[in-house]
Amino acid sequence: MSTSRTEALWRELKAVLPPEAVVTDADVLESHRRDQAEWAPAGMPGVLVRPASTSEVQAVLRVATALRVPVVARGAGSGLSGGANAVEGGIVLSLMRMNRVLEVDRRGMFAVVQPGVLNAAVKSAAAEQGLWYAPDPASWEFSSIGGNLATNAGGLCCVKYGVTGDAVLGLEAVLADGSVVRTGGRTMKTSAGYGLTRLFVGSEGTLGIITEATLKLRPRPPPATTLLAAFPTLVSAGIAVTDIMATTRPSLLELMDRATVRAVEAHAAMGLDVESAALLLARSDAGGKQGAEETAAMAAVCEAAGATFVTQSTDEAEGELLMQARRLAYPALEKQGATLLDDVGVPLSRIPELLAAIERIATTRAVLIGTFGHAGDGNMHPTIVFDRDDAHASVRARAAFDEIVEAALALGGTITGEHGVGALKQPFLEAQLGAGGMHLHRSIKAALDPLGLLNPGKVV
Amino acid sequence: MSTSRTEALWRELKAVLPPEAVVTDADVLESHRRDQAEWAPAGMPGVLVRPASTSEVQAVLRVATALRVPVVARGAGSGLSGGANAVEGGIVLSLMRMNRVLEVDRRGMFAVVQPGVLNAAVKSAAAEQGLWYAPDPASWEFSSIGGNLATNAGGLCCVKYGVTGDAVLGLEAVLADGSVVRTGGRTMKTSAGYGLTRLFVGSEGTLGIITEATLKLRPRPPPATTLLAAFPTLVSAGIAVTDIMATTRPSLLELMDRATVRAVEAHAAMGLDVESAALLLARSDAGGKQGAEETAAMAAVCEAAGATFVTQSTDEAEGELLMQARRLAYPALEKQGATLLDDVGVPLSRIPELLAAIERIATTRAVLIGTFGHAGDGNMHPTIVFDRDDAHASVRARAAFDEIVEAALALGGTITGEHGVGALKQPFLEAQLGAGGMHLHRSIKAALDPLGLLNPGKVV
Repeated sequence: MSTSRTEALWRELKAVLPPEAVVTDADVLESHRRDQAEWAPAGMPGVLVRPASTSEVQAVLRVATALRVPVVARGAGSGLSGGANAVEGGIVLSLMRMNRVLEVDRRGMFAVVQPGVLNAAVKSAAAEQGLWYAPDPASWEFSSIGGNLATNAGGLCCVKYGVTGDAVLGLEAVLADGSVVRTGGRTMKTSAGYGLTRLFVGSEGTLGIITEATLKLRPRPPPATTLLAAFPTLVSAGIAVTDIMATTRPSLLELMDRATVRAVEAHAAMGLDVESAALLLARSDAGGKQGAEETAAMAAVCEAAGATFVTQSTDEAEGELLMQARRLAYPALEKQGATLLDDVGVPLSRIPELLAAIERIATTRAVLIGTFGHAGDGNMHPTIVFDRDDAHASVRARAAFDEIVEAALALGGTITGEHGVGALKQPFLEAQLGAGGMHLHRSIKAALDPLGLLNPGKVV
Repeated sequence: MSTSRTEALWRELKAVLPPEAVVTDADVLESHRRDQAEWAPAGMPGVLVRPASTSEVQAVLRVATALRVPVVARGAGSGLSGGANAVEGGIVLSLMRMNRVLEVDRRGMFAVVQPGVLNAAVKSAAAEQGLWYAPDPASWEFSSIGGNLATNAGGLCCVKYGVTGDAVLGLEAVLADGSVVRTGGRTMKTSAGYGLTRLFVGSEGTLGIITEATLKLRPRPPPATTLLAAFPTLVSAGIAVTDIMATTRPSLLELMDRATVRAVEAHAAMGLDVESAALLLARSDAGGKQGAEETAAMAAVCEAAGATFVTQSTDEAEGELLMQARRLAYPALEKQGATLLDDVGVPLSRIPELLAAIERIATTRAVLIGTFGHAGDGNMHPTIVFDRDDAHASVRARAAFDEIVEAALALGGTITGEHGVGALKQPFLEAQLGAGGMHLHRSIKAALDPLGLLNPGKVV
């Protein structure tokens, strides 16, 4: 964008927003160019706007529409697919000043929040009323609800409590033309009109800017009981996963492959079995004796599937120790080199095939790949570790990343389970959705954002 | 539509479909005019088509597009809002010949079914693999999955397991132009592209015709424990509902008001307390001792809220007896006269206000209204009972129906919790969604069905 156009943009924005909401400082713009997806392309924004209200978001979008300038919405910047990466010369719209919990209704079991609130703050506000906001992406302490909504973020609890979209009762969003729409409401159920709440959730800022969300709260679950099991083969671990899912209701069911276990053990000697093909971690929050019984049932399933080691605990502190192995997975892999974190999903029954394919890719591409993730959802995070200073290794890592996505698709899976398409997965979307699916996506995009100003180049 | 146009329509359809798929018999057409919503308008269709495959559905829609003839999709005809009511001279497309369970994948925990399969048949097919298809609308024994999907049907299990949409992993649908699209897939989670599965679910055949669904299966829950409690006031029952929801995880939480209890007691003397303002029925399927503990916790909540009578049972047969009171609610009210069944939802905390408003409406309109429903979701079915032969009573009943919908809206609620908008609630939709919401609905409708051929006059 030319300097004169950028200056016109600044002028128009400053005319409708308070001074603190329009930022043109080059260093600040640089720091708002991208999220955490290192390899996704990012432009240099022409301006950063920091609206403090829905009406200020409307004002920004009216200016953007008048001047035909693209707008990229942004939360805490913790995204992993480049969904918040800036467009050259465009507007970056940070929602981090809209960071209030507007209401927590204990009897209604919902919270009304602005998009810049951190997930952790929603959890705290719910806990103050004795309630629970379930969704728990790994980034929950530093990611915004707006970003969680934009990507339909997942987490560890999804296996029992669903993804972010499952916890949303209603939304307020500003469309590209500056108009405000509301979807859903404060009721637990509604069949009135189209499922537009779920259309905006996961749309990564390409259909509208979410300015308020009504989130469903739940009772706090009882303390969890925990299980750790080691398996000699990927197939035996896969059988344990599907048999656990078919017979019990785990509140968590995570897997780590051998490469991940070895990285964790190298990072913090925990006495994990580094010869196992995979470890499973499972929890029950059924509560009381039933929690212990459910964990025992899961242990029996693991043993029947051929686990070489099974340990369980009803003690919360002990359970947290077992959980440490899983929590250290990504930090431990990161210590071994530069990382490229993938996010794919397959039908539950295909997990062993996915893991075997990833092992083959690691061998042929001569890279280390540690795979861990949400086994109970079939959602895995193969993490490619490589030497950043070795240009060849970087190329091989990128090739491995692509091959993992292709392997998931070949198994009837998805190119992203919870991180979103963003810029990083955009080249793969048509392979998953087909030409008809892409056409349908583009029809809806055109209906809501006819000028194509909202986060262009992402998703569709 | 003129006779010559209708004959041209028959000719074109017979050219692309096998003879048994094109029905022009007047008696059969008459029997396919409407669903169970007595008061919703219905036209006389020009033809009934009964495709046996997706490609036959495509053929129908291509003919419809070429000749500009409206198409109303239809399942078992058990709908309660006129969503399947025919358009004069149009095509009624019955999906009841597409009635196969194509696949049940135990390890993948999903079933692939055609839309004409009954809900009961999906449950049976899942049970054969030791699994469970959760959604349980009251019509589950005679409603089709296609209809359940079209209305995003609810039921008794929703309070713990969600609505129909929560059990859908993916869809195949035919658009108005005859093209086929697929949404979602066989994975438990995906963030790849827009939430189009939830856009088609609940769209009542106005955006596309669902020709296949991939449904999520769950482990079969343990036997339930059951609780019945009687309350002296609506407010005390409402407090019990919100306190149960905030502290426990009931697998069912149903309410019956005094008028309903009296009707049930008149129909089958069960010894229910006809002086109570409301009865609550709750269940826990936590299993084992935890189920009993959870039910005891709910009983304690009821007592603290002021229940005058509480009984609980861990015995399945005894629990079924307690459930009989709820199951008889609608049949018992139907015995007292003609009925008009409403379906509204309010935020959980507003249930007592809704029930009080309904009592006022019953008084001012001089009709009997029995209210029962899914208290844990805030979704109520006020049922207006009147003398069909009394024209004045019919007018008053209809006025009461409208006033109940308005009362729900005034409490921040929804005009339909689970039956769908159809024709019956269409006049109220704008009051709930606002002008902006309606505009957005129409934009999406225009993007997917630019000629407006799919179920015109319904929803939007």
